Amino acid sequence: MKTLLTYLTHPHVEAWNLQNRHIEQLSAQFPGVRVLNCLHSKDFLDQLSQADGAIVWYFKREWLDRAPHLQWIATPAAGRDWIDLPPDSQLPVHFGGFHGMMMAESVLGAMLYFCKAFEASRALQKQKKWARIKLSQQITSLYGARVTILGLGRIGQTIGRVLKPFGCTLTGVRSRLMEAPDYFAEDDRVVTVDRLPEVLPETDHLVLVLPGGTKTDSLVTADHFRLLPKHCRLYNVGRGNAYRESDLVQALATGQIAGAYLDVFDTEPLPESSPLWECGNVLIQPHLSAASPQYLDLFIEELIGKLKG
Amino acid sequence: MKTLLTYLTHPHVEAWNLQNRHIEQLSAQFPGVRVLNCLHSKDFLDQLSQADGAIVWYFKREWLDRAPHLQWIATPAAGRDWIDLPPDSQLPVHFGGFHGMMMAESVLGAMLYFCKAFEASRALQKQKKWARIKLSQQITSLYGARVTILGLGRIGQTIGRVLKPFGCTLTGVRSRLMEAPDYFAEDDRVVTVDRLPEVLPETDHLVLVLPGGTKTDSLVTADHFRLLPKHCRLYNVGRGNAYRESDLVQALATGQIAGAYLDVFDTEPLPESSPLWECGNVLIQPHLSAASPQYLDLFIEELIGKLKG
Repeated sequence: MKTLLTYLTHPHVEAWNLQNRHIEQLSAQFPGVRVLNCLHSKDFLDQLSQADGAIVWYFKREWLDRAPHLQWIATPAAGRDWIDLPPDSQLPVHFGGFHGMMMAESVLGAMLYFCKAFEASRALQKQKKWARIKLSQQITSLYGARVTILGLGRIGQTIGRVLKPFGCTLTGVRSRLMEAPDYFAEDDRVVTVDRLPEVLPETDHLVLVLPGGTKTDSLVTADHFRLLPKHCRLYNVGRGNAYRESDLVQALATGQIAGAYLDVFDTEPLPESSPLWECGNVLIQPHLSAASPQYLDLFIEELIGKLKG
Repeated sequence: MKTLLTYLTHPHVEAWNLQNRHIEQLSAQFPGVRVLNCLHSKDFLDQLSQADGAIVWYFKREWLDRAPHLQWIATPAAGRDWIDLPPDSQLPVHFGGFHGMMMAESVLGAMLYFCKAFEASRALQKQKKWARIKLSQQITSLYGARVTILGLGRIGQTIGRVLKPFGCTLTGVRSRLMEAPDYFAEDDRVVTVDRLPEVLPETDHLVLVLPGGTKTDSLVTADHFRLLPKHCRLYNVGRGNAYRESDLVQALATGQIAGAYLDVFDTEPLPESSPLWECGNVLIQPHLSAASPQYLDLFIEELIGKLKG
């Protein structure tokens, strides 16, 4: 590798812009390599002819013609959505695998936001009310809670790992079976997706960590929502295509489930016309479950390990 | 043991009232023992003369004269505040040791409530705003955060144990040194309380789990608050005597610290006149950090183990 092209800018999220410290870190780790940082796509495309490696948020297949030396692409994203290569491409792509911990923070935070009745607490606090009776009736615990993780990939397993010490019972659901992760206990299990109808009625918290794509389109149906206990809450940090949003709105509005934390949506930004905005039992974040000031630090650290290893 | 007297009722919190299932569980575990459940203090005092063991929320020293056979007292409470015995009493008292996990849920939930900007998220959601820029600037991570646990007893250690998998660096502060808990890593440490001035400037989250009593009265001073970084948040699930509330209000109002989760107060219920109610950067709960529907299940399970073991 002689030339490494970096092009990581993001107009909305500051933490997703490459900083000088990252460029210095790459240069220090690969002494013979020239690191060229680009701030605009024109700049990137102009220099692509020299690149042996490229670190980007997105890549278009037509750019390959301009990249005769390119040996690999790396992106911080976990999702495959923004690296567009021909189906028969042999070019290695390194996707980020470091997101799990930050997403686990968001999922666990949302679970405890609901379990500990923080929203009701704040509302009563504003009224200066010492409301022990009312709040204690709403507070629940993760201890002994049954958590189903639909999409037990790398991120799903990280979420399960931080949940386990709280005394949850875990069910991981996957398209293909795998051996149970090392931290699973006797009561925990991994099942295939066809067993959802049997798993859902025994689920207190349903975490969706599914990838996008046609295979997962509307994988969770209105019938599935009907199988969940009324006290169940849903957490979606995967992709918004996993269900039809109208089905979810129906399940929330009719009390089929108790609430939801939603970070991803079928259309993003979520249109102002979506009834989800006004659901009282929903906590919405704008696709930020993996956001963190340490985001690119973690990515660069992981990538250096991969390139050296 | 022939007769076991139980008297666990609570007017405000349903989960703190003994249920039939608990009495049945005790009877089943100790077949020869008569379990007498009392619903009022008069009832309890009338029967105390027969009791070999007593399970209570509170006990007064003058009651001892009526309890010639009493061999032990057990209480779900972790705090020593409500079992009032003469200083030279030899009567064994079993205090609850099961609270840590539920309190850890509350502390971790509060940390993530702040880190993930859930309150701002809900406010922007009500305006139907997809506010990626604004929210991502507020979101932080527990990954790499420096957490100081002041009061590294049984509960403090449980809180540390669930925090560690998130990648926090831990400092436990105690009156007397102890060996580091088994889950502490190389960067984690246990220090004595005289080293607070050195520890506080390097603290992102300060968790107070101190017991009440004269030894801890105003242990955290206005000078200590001034040593904390401005982004630091405080979590108090111990007792309200740890600082003067006026000092805390001052630290919050002048931006010496960024916010607080407060579950305990010097006077409870917190008086309506307290300025804490109106602090925007404070999340208040009415001494419920250990509340859970499983509260007495956990206590009875633990107590049976102690009595049999």
